[in-house]
Amino acid sequence: MINITVDEKQTELIYTKYDEKEFIRNKISNIDEFLNDIEDKEVRWLDIVGLADESILEEICEKFKIHPLVIEDILNMEQTPKVEDYEEGLFVIAKNIILEKEELLSEQISFMIYRDKLISFRYKDTGIFDEIEGRLKSGTALRKNGADDLLYALLDIIVDRYFNIMEDIGDRLDDLEDETLENPDRSILGKVYLLKRDLISIRNILWPMRNTISSISKNEYDIINGNTIYYFRDIYDHIIQIIDINETYREIASSMLEIYLSSIGNKTNDVMKILTIYSTIFIPLTFVAGVYGMNFKYMPELYWKYSYPSFWIISIIITIYMIIFFRKKGWM
Amino acid sequence: MINITVDEKQTELIYTKYDEKEFIRNKISNIDEFLNDIEDKEVRWLDIVGLADESILEEICEKFKIHPLVIEDILNMEQTPKVEDYEEGLFVIAKNIILEKEELLSEQISFMIYRDKLISFRYKDTGIFDEIEGRLKSGTALRKNGADDLLYALLDIIVDRYFNIMEDIGDRLDDLEDETLENPDRSILGKVYLLKRDLISIRNILWPMRNTISSISKNEYDIINGNTIYYFRDIYDHIIQIIDINETYREIASSMLEIYLSSIGNKTNDVMKILTIYSTIFIPLTFVAGVYGMNFKYMPELYWKYSYPSFWIISIIITIYMIIFFRKKGWM
Amino acid sequence: MINITVDEKQTELIYTKYDEKEFIRNKISNIDEFLNDIEDKEVRWLDIVGLADESILEEICEKFKIHPLVIEDILNMEQTPKVEDYEEGLFVIAKNIILEKEELLSEQISFMIYRDKLISFRYKDTGIFDEIEGRLKSGTALRKNGADDLLYALLDIIVDRYFNIMEDIGDRLDDLEDETLENPDRSILGKVYLLKRDLISIRNILWPMRNTISSISKNEYDIINGNTIYYFRDIYDHIIQIIDINETYREIASSMLEIYLSSIGNKTNDVMKILTIYSTIFIPLTFVAGVYGMNFKYMPELYWKYSYPSFWIISIIITIYMIIFFRKKGWM
Amino acid sequence: MINITVDEKQTELIYTKYDEKEFIRNKISNIDEFLNDIEDKEVRWLDIVGLADESILEEICEKFKIHPLVIEDILNMEQTPKVEDYEEGLFVIAKNIILEKEELLSEQISFMIYRDKLISFRYKDTGIFDEIEGRLKSGTALRKNGADDLLYALLDIIVDRYFNIMEDIGDRLDDLEDETLENPDRSILGKVYLLKRDLISIRNILWPMRNTISSISKNEYDIINGNTIYYFRDIYDHIIQIIDINETYREIASSMLEIYLSSIGNKTNDVMKILTIYSTIFIPLTFVAGVYGMNFKYMPELYWKYSYPSFWIISIIITIYMIIFFRKKGWM
Amino acid sequence: MINITVDEKQTELIYTKYDEKEFIRNKISNIDEFLNDIEDKEVRWLDIVGLADESILEEICEKFKIHPLVIEDILNMEQTPKVEDYEEGLFVIAKNIILEKEELLSEQISFMIYRDKLISFRYKDTGIFDEIEGRLKSGTALRKNGADDLLYALLDIIVDRYFNIMEDIGDRLDDLEDETLENPDRSILGKVYLLKRDLISIRNILWPMRNTISSISKNEYDIINGNTIYYFRDIYDHIIQIIDINETYREIASSMLEIYLSSIGNKTNDVMKILTIYSTIFIPLTFVAGVYGMNFKYMPELYWKYSYPSFWIISIIITIYMIIFFRKKGWM
Repeated sequence: MINITVDEKQTELIYTKYDEKEFIRNKISNIDEFLNDIEDKEVRWLDIVGLADESILEEICEKFKIHPLVIEDILNMEQTPKVEDYEEGLFVIAKNIILEKEELLSEQISFMIYRDKLISFRYKDTGIFDEIEGRLKSGTALRKNGADDLLYALLDIIVDRYFNIMEDIGDRLDDLEDETLENPDRSILGKVYLLKRDLISIRNILWPMRNTISSISKNEYDIINGNTIYYFRDIYDHIIQIIDINETYREIASSMLEIYLSSIGNKTNDVMKILTIYSTIFIPLTFVAGVYGMNFKYMPELYWKYSYPSFWIISIIITIYMIIFFRKKGWM
Repeated sequence: MINITVDEKQTELIYTKYDEKEFIRNKISNIDEFLNDIEDKEVRWLDIVGLADESILEEICEKFKIHPLVIEDILNMEQTPKVEDYEEGLFVIAKNIILEKEELLSEQISFMIYRDKLISFRYKDTGIFDEIEGRLKSGTALRKNGADDLLYALLDIIVDRYFNIMEDIGDRLDDLEDETLENPDRSILGKVYLLKRDLISIRNILWPMRNTISSISKNEYDIINGNTIYYFRDIYDHIIQIIDINETYREIASSMLEIYLSSIGNKTNDVMKILTIYSTIFIPLTFVAGVYGMNFKYMPELYWKYSYPSFWIISIIITIYMIIFFRKKGWM
Repeated sequence: MINITVDEKQTELIYTKYDEKEFIRNKISNIDEFLNDIEDKEVRWLDIVGLADESILEEICEKFKIHPLVIEDILNMEQTPKVEDYEEGLFVIAKNIILEKEELLSEQISFMIYRDKLISFRYKDTGIFDEIEGRLKSGTALRKNGADDLLYALLDIIVDRYFNIMEDIGDRLDDLEDETLENPDRSILGKVYLLKRDLISIRNILWPMRNTISSISKNEYDIINGNTIYYFRDIYDHIIQIIDINETYREIASSMLEIYLSSIGNKTNDVMKILTIYSTIFIPLTFVAGVYGMNFKYMPELYWKYSYPSFWIISIIITIYMIIFFRKKGWM
Repeated sequence: MINITVDEKQTELIYTKYDEKEFIRNKISNIDEFLNDIEDKEVRWLDIVGLADESILEEICEKFKIHPLVIEDILNMEQTPKVEDYEEGLFVIAKNIILEKEELLSEQISFMIYRDKLISFRYKDTGIFDEIEGRLKSGTALRKNGADDLLYALLDIIVDRYFNIMEDIGDRLDDLEDETLENPDRSILGKVYLLKRDLISIRNILWPMRNTISSISKNEYDIINGNTIYYFRDIYDHIIQIIDINETYREIASSMLEIYLSSIGNKTNDVMKILTIYSTIFIPLTFVAGVYGMNFKYMPELYWKYSYPSFWIISIIITIYMIIFFRKKGWM
Repeated sequence: MINITVDEKQTELIYTKYDEKEFIRNKISNIDEFLNDIEDKEVRWLDIVGLADESILEEICEKFKIHPLVIEDILNMEQTPKVEDYEEGLFVIAKNIILEKEELLSEQISFMIYRDKLISFRYKDTGIFDEIEGRLKSGTALRKNGADDLLYALLDIIVDRYFNIMEDIGDRLDDLEDETLENPDRSILGKVYLLKRDLISIRNILWPMRNTISSISKNEYDIINGNTIYYFRDIYDHIIQIIDINETYREIASSMLEIYLSSIGNKTNDVMKILTIYSTIFIPLTFVAGVYGMNFKYMPELYWKYSYPSFWIISIIITIYMIIFFRKKGWM
């Protein structure tokens, strides 16, 4: 799958902090605003959008003592989803799938989570976290809990997007199914091929996502609260569902191709039948007509009175006989 | 698989309580009737049919301290079967398969089980639990044991339904087999395709059901009595059987498609043979007839007396020769 | 696989008891004969043939405190092979495969084994245990050991039968291989299909049998003597062998189908070649003959003296040229 | 795979004993020579070639207290490779593959290994151990170590033979690849089929061999010295390599078949194109010629002076037009 | 995959030693220079290029007490990647893939790593380690850490090369995809076949590489520092990515072949349609023309005035009718 095109120029720092009582969200221009603003019991979330300015990453890296490999992973857009446990916190890479102009694009979103703070790294603002912002602003449900719960909410949004993508593919598949069974024409080939390729690409993201969430939901990491585990188990269930759907769609697409292949065979068969019916009826008749077109001096039939009507009668009999023969064979 | 169409308007609460001596079954209008009616040693079963009224779910949720994710799962009809252990009790999602007008529908049924009570959540009354009601009313066998045994009985009914579905599919498969081997026509393609799709859909329900029952039958949960485990092991065996049957059917359907593909090739071959036999016999003869239809002034054969009979004799010899040739090739 | 047809009327109780010194075998009419006949150090085997009379099963069930699910399993002919550990003893379901009139039938045989006694449940007397009876009667080798050794001997017989079945299928496969490679005609399709279906059915029995024997041979159950374990490991090896053979046969059958499919393509190709050779030789010649059959007043060639011989010479040249062309293409 | 043909008449006992200083090799006629010749620190190897005389096996069996199942396994040529731990020693079955007249044969070789002695059982002298005899005789490297090292050397020889076999198959595959891509003719079908069957047969031997060696190399058995384990790990690596090669070859052979299938389709396509080009050029021309061959009294064109040359001009124009059309379609 | 061609004549010893302060790199002619040069805290790397001179290997073997099997493995170019733990150090075999003149070649590189020194064995100087030399010379980042970090850097380079190879294959695949969907001609067959074979070969290297790195990154070996483990986990992630890409490419290539097979069927269908359209239009017309070319004395139509125009009118009507018929069928 191709990655989203990235705006290479800008890096925005969006700093959100909240607890049950208060919710503050600002664009900041300097990481220190985030670093120095340490208050007890508050959850602090730094959303870094646009990774053009590597110096910010390096600064974060240094101040949070993040392993250099983490920064390398964040900047490598081809990274597969994974979770890695570092002494200071948990590093999570997730992939979002976006459907843009009938093409699937993948968006890599990385998270560094600590007890009371979360840093998210995005290449571009695709609007995926807007819903969370709304929920944080409007209600307090999400504001009651810690940074791990925020991570859950963000990952949940990403995984929910997959359902939309699969639904879209399901619609394409239904259309193709109707075409294949009712009116199989050759454009189906390309469509099924592209659909299968899309499904393969999605699966390549789903499997590491599954492993990542599974690993989190198995309570392996201290930073994730025992209570939040239930929620991650829920995301895990969703991914399993999506993987199942993906697998099913791939099998259905394969069956469709088999059906299409058979239907080509059937069509060739039909074409052949028409040719054969015509040929086998007219070839002997044309031969007979040819015979009496010969210029031999001594051909007694030529002089008989009823030769010509007889010819037509014989022709009609042969034709009827052939038609009955083909009817019996089920060709007509 | 498509979900059953749900009546969105109604929510019925059916409250059943029983012990060895007594069996009482009522429709109640208020959950409190269920909540306040606590007696020792009785099994109490609240069957909630129709999930339109979310307020009831929320009320239950609150009074039983059920995790909000559980309610979310109950209301999401796309949930895959699973079992989840909460402190208060065990949450089980099962899927029933219904065959309606040649189409497979899935019905999601959720259970919340406690030591002495069971709450079941259904979207619609499809009559699936009527048999259990009858057994509870008529005999005391089931009334001797606890709520876990009731859960067993209900899940057993659901799994037994799968056998009926598989039997129906087995019949369709047998019909297709006869058609494919004896008289392969093109309607087979669509039928095999739909059959395979049905089998894939069923498998997608069977696997998580298998994991769910397996998890219960492995004695992992306190609420399930050690004695009832044997019974769950029995359901587990049944699901394994159904999965095996499903797998076998899918392989047989695939083989059938291969056979059908080959039989199309054979048919085209037959059509070609007829065309070729006719053409190769008459094409040379027609050529010869054409030759003697030429108007050249100097063609000695035209004036010979036995030209015409010779022509017929040669024609017959060529025809016989070709027939022998095709006989030898096994084409006639 | 279809089950054996069962004689629904009769239930025979065959009671065998033996130790090193003595061997007694009787038909008994009442279970109590078996129950009351308790002697030290003897192995007692009750072989129940024909399960029509359920009251006997219930009686046994009650007297031996067998779990009701066991009886249910014994009476359900669709049960897959399995082993289950109950407090009182071990419950084993095995499947025998019988080849009757070119059709595979499955025979379900259940065992309930205790320290010093074995009860076997069969639907019909298919003669499968006659060999064991003979060995018990004639020699003392088998009589030295306990009931677990008897179970081994009985299961060994069942598994050995699979080899015969596989050998038979191997013969069918060899015949098909010869046909496919040398003279592929269309009856092969049906034969390969049925062979594959048989292999799938057999595998469906083999896998649970494998798990059953594996579980016994892993020394998991107290009732099986440590020494007898070696013997069960031996049966296990045999099943693995049979599964390997089965898998190999299925792959070979699939390859055969691919070969057959290709050979149809080749045949169609051959037919087309003959048609094309004939057509491309005679079509231009017939056209030329047609030209000089035209009745135009002014056709100078018609009056030339050597027109006719020239026509033949040109025809022969064209024919030779075409033959050389097709020879070069390797079509003739 | 077929077993080697066995000479049923002879049983040879070859007794080898050695330590660092001494190497003695004799044919003996009686097992007692082997049994009674117990010296400290020497490795004693009894190589039994030809298993016709079962009494010898029984004698060994008795004197070494070998389990009767071992003898049964040795005599059953269909046994799959395995290792079994008995109290007295380790029992190993290996399979050697021999290529004889383009056919693969399997040779079963069994070993019974004790602390200081090794008994090997072979059906026939295929010369496989000659190299070991040479190495023992000439150098002392192998003579320094115990019986487990001798077992390693013998198994290593067997596994090394597989490489030769795979190399031979690799050559056949390369030839087939060239044929398939350059000049696909129908003999390829049979050759690929036989190659695939050979690969399947070899895999059936490789997998249990792998398990056998793996089990030995995992230091599970006391008799194998900790130091020798490294060597067995080495054989294990070799088998894994061979399995990988086998798997690769099978996939390549499958791809080849797909390519071949496609190339048949292409060929039919070519044949059809020639036929269609000829037909579509000449069919309309022949029709026109036929028209002016009609004998209607009133056909004005017949009397025009330039009718005939016009006919030829029209014919040539049609022909050129068709040729351009087919050129554009890429058929010519 | 074929191995790189090896220069059999030369053996170069390149000795590099460094710590944070100093970096020295020399060609040495004698191993003793390396052996005797023991200083504290320095990392010493001996890069042996060209393995022609076995005596050097044997000398090393002896002086470092390396197991003889290690030398055997190093010299066997068919070895699969692996890691083996010896008492003295860790033995690692890796495979590099080189693309030379459109052909994939594999280069085997072995490592023997000790606490403070690394010996690498290469068959030929392919320039793969030049980058590391540069990094060691220019910066001190790599010089801070031990020999295990050097091993990481070298393996990382090897694995990074795989990405280049996969990218190249991805480009070939994209080209093939365009060809297959837009203009499927028969050269695609060979190209897809070779591409699949390349992917299979690469996978055969990737899997053991994955196992090797996985084993190192799981902290199983003392010699690898706990801190360096993170880095090996990173290489592991890369390999998993490459394996995923490889798998995806193989599936896409398979889909492509299916599409191509279908497109051949479609083409044959098209050819057949043209033939059938021409034939079915002209065959009846030619027959009619033949009829009126007959020489019967008594054919009334021959003398009618409007016979000839009527013939043309009928011909045109039949032609139009056939064209409408084929239009309706979608053939024209």
